[in-house]
Amino acid sequence: MSTTTATTRTGKRAFNFNAGPAALPLPVLERIREELLDYRGTGMSVMELSHRSAEFEAINAGAEQNLRKLLAIPDDYAVIFVQGGGSLQFSMVPINLCLPGKPVDILHTGAWTAKAISELKKGVLHNIAASTEADKFTRVPRTDEIKLSPEASYTYLCTNNTIEGTQYHTLPATSAPLVADMSSDIASRPVDVSKFGLIFAGAQKNLGPSGVTVIIVRKELAERADKNLPTVLQYRTHIKEKSLYHTPPTFAVYVLGLVTEWIAGEGGLAGMQKRNEAKARLLYDTIDNSNGFYRCPVEKSSRSLMNVVFRVANGEEAAEKDFAAKANAANLIGTPGHRSVGGMRISLYNAVGLDAVEALTSFMREFQRSRG
Amino acid sequence: MSTTTATTRTGKRAFNFNAGPAALPLPVLERIREELLDYRGTGMSVMELSHRSAEFEAINAGAEQNLRKLLAIPDDYAVIFVQGGGSLQFSMVPINLCLPGKPVDILHTGAWTAKAISELKKGVLHNIAASTEADKFTRVPRTDEIKLSPEASYTYLCTNNTIEGTQYHTLPATSAPLVADMSSDIASRPVDVSKFGLIFAGAQKNLGPSGVTVIIVRKELAERADKNLPTVLQYRTHIKEKSLYHTPPTFAVYVLGLVTEWIAGEGGLAGMQKRNEAKARLLYDTIDNSNGFYRCPVEKSSRSLMNVVFRVANGEEAAEKDFAAKANAANLIGTPGHRSVGGMRISLYNAVGLDAVEALTSFMREFQRSRG
Repeated sequence: MSTTTATTRTGKRAFNFNAGPAALPLPVLERIREELLDYRGTGMSVMELSHRSAEFEAINAGAEQNLRKLLAIPDDYAVIFVQGGGSLQFSMVPINLCLPGKPVDILHTGAWTAKAISELKKGVLHNIAASTEADKFTRVPRTDEIKLSPEASYTYLCTNNTIEGTQYHTLPATSAPLVADMSSDIASRPVDVSKFGLIFAGAQKNLGPSGVTVIIVRKELAERADKNLPTVLQYRTHIKEKSLYHTPPTFAVYVLGLVTEWIAGEGGLAGMQKRNEAKARLLYDTIDNSNGFYRCPVEKSSRSLMNVVFRVANGEEAAEKDFAAKANAANLIGTPGHRSVGGMRISLYNAVGLDAVEALTSFMREFQRSRG
Repeated sequence: MSTTTATTRTGKRAFNFNAGPAALPLPVLERIREELLDYRGTGMSVMELSHRSAEFEAINAGAEQNLRKLLAIPDDYAVIFVQGGGSLQFSMVPINLCLPGKPVDILHTGAWTAKAISELKKGVLHNIAASTEADKFTRVPRTDEIKLSPEASYTYLCTNNTIEGTQYHTLPATSAPLVADMSSDIASRPVDVSKFGLIFAGAQKNLGPSGVTVIIVRKELAERADKNLPTVLQYRTHIKEKSLYHTPPTFAVYVLGLVTEWIAGEGGLAGMQKRNEAKARLLYDTIDNSNGFYRCPVEKSSRSLMNVVFRVANGEEAAEKDFAAKANAANLIGTPGHRSVGGMRISLYNAVGLDAVEALTSFMREFQRSRG
């Protein structure tokens, strides 16, 4: 294996609008590179540390503490790191939290809640408490549309819909515990954790690399689960063992720790919200001021600060392909929409800088002129 | 976050005998460091690439191809990468492979098969076909001790027992498909994959970092599973989607690709076997020639090439603590045995060099002299 291939082109960072895995903060990447061969004097890479070592235990505890501080997580909530992503949570949540005879209320807002519903359909009593499918998922449900069950095991929603570009800006009031797939907007703005029973989120959008999933759960809820379930699929197992029941994805937890440290240094979640609002405003304004050349199909009150979707030239396929190709050539990466819906999608997670959005919006104006 | 902390002390690499996560090849770490900010001209870290990008698809396919070549995996076997480690496989194997009314035959050889058995006890028909518990797991079962069921769903064993320091050097003949937990000796020596129905292995010992689990499964066996199982827990899902059903642990797969490339460059599995035998021979000889100061409790025919366990001065606690502390001070990391059994344990996975074992055995002789 050659160790001299010189592919590193510092200063030539891509403007990365990927939907996840996504951009990471440059200072975090530099720190990882710096200590890659020797984690803080141990003579080992962080990947080579035992997960039972004092060094890794400190990394693990530090990552948890950073999240607790950033999200102001109350003491009666556990914070654990697991594997398997949102896709495993679609099954792990119901097997842990369902109460006999009490349905799951679910708010259906697009592709990710559809996946959660498919898993519920395998024998879990459930109720579609609201759906915006008739409006092609261009908005999240209004409070007055939501029909909750009198006694639900929990109410489930996806706070930000990456594919459809929608986001809840106010939460529905529920008497049952609220369970949120927060994969794509966790830590992007302040959140009142006490309003939730359980929050899950893959790290690969706002918090780090793929391969680690954050669970924030009110401890008493984790006690609902049958102890006869597979040990590794019970939240209580990971709570009891502080995420060290089995070998954790150590490197991913380490990077999550660095990213949360970076967020804290940038003003915490209030700082992130300010950055994220400024980025989203610039992009939505560019779309809205394009005389219809660009068009965002999402209702204004449901527009996501994380994933901005839009069509180019009335969704003409050739124009959208041309946009993506030229954006790519201009070092603007990840602009095509999800393959299931087409169009364009720009993801503006925490680590995407305003400079990236400025470069993009300049490109958009230029692209529009070129087709004038 | 400071980017100038200079903790990298090249040339001061630890001799790393951790049981997993464990040592990685230095050229692999150097390569990771080199391309950390810019994966081969993309302007992004490998962690920032979309898992749907051409670059990551090539990484994913390359890692699979490397494993196929190294282990000479037949075409009727799938190779997939999943999350959750061996601990998830303890449940995922039975829910996918059990046939109605046909028991799982399991060979019990220590802590890791005990964990597999605990999960079977949650309602899976099973038969302990052999156990060496009466001999304190100091050996694997002899062929004549194994009592197989006439019609088993599959026969399960753990090829290498990390805690007890035992390893199978010949496989039992079974008519049912053989399922192996090969977490701690995969890719350490040539293997006849066609003798197995399914092999699983966490990468964090011989193949890479933690956070990714390799599954090698005869495709027809994956079709046994009920399609009503959680989608993410069915092998067929990951086979169909080539390990890209959901967001994979991209960085861990990338490192696994680099490690398997390194193994190929070092003579493949035959090369690994030669290295591993030389390292183990040197260490076992040092133990056996110590006039009883060091003692390996494992029967010679079952001794592991991967994890060498031994006691110091008849297992005297103070002596063993002293050994570990002085070894640590001499840059020999990870010598204590598993907390459940005590004593010492030296893990000699692929990336551990003969130089590390030479340093260790010199230290052992010196330590013995110092207590003479």
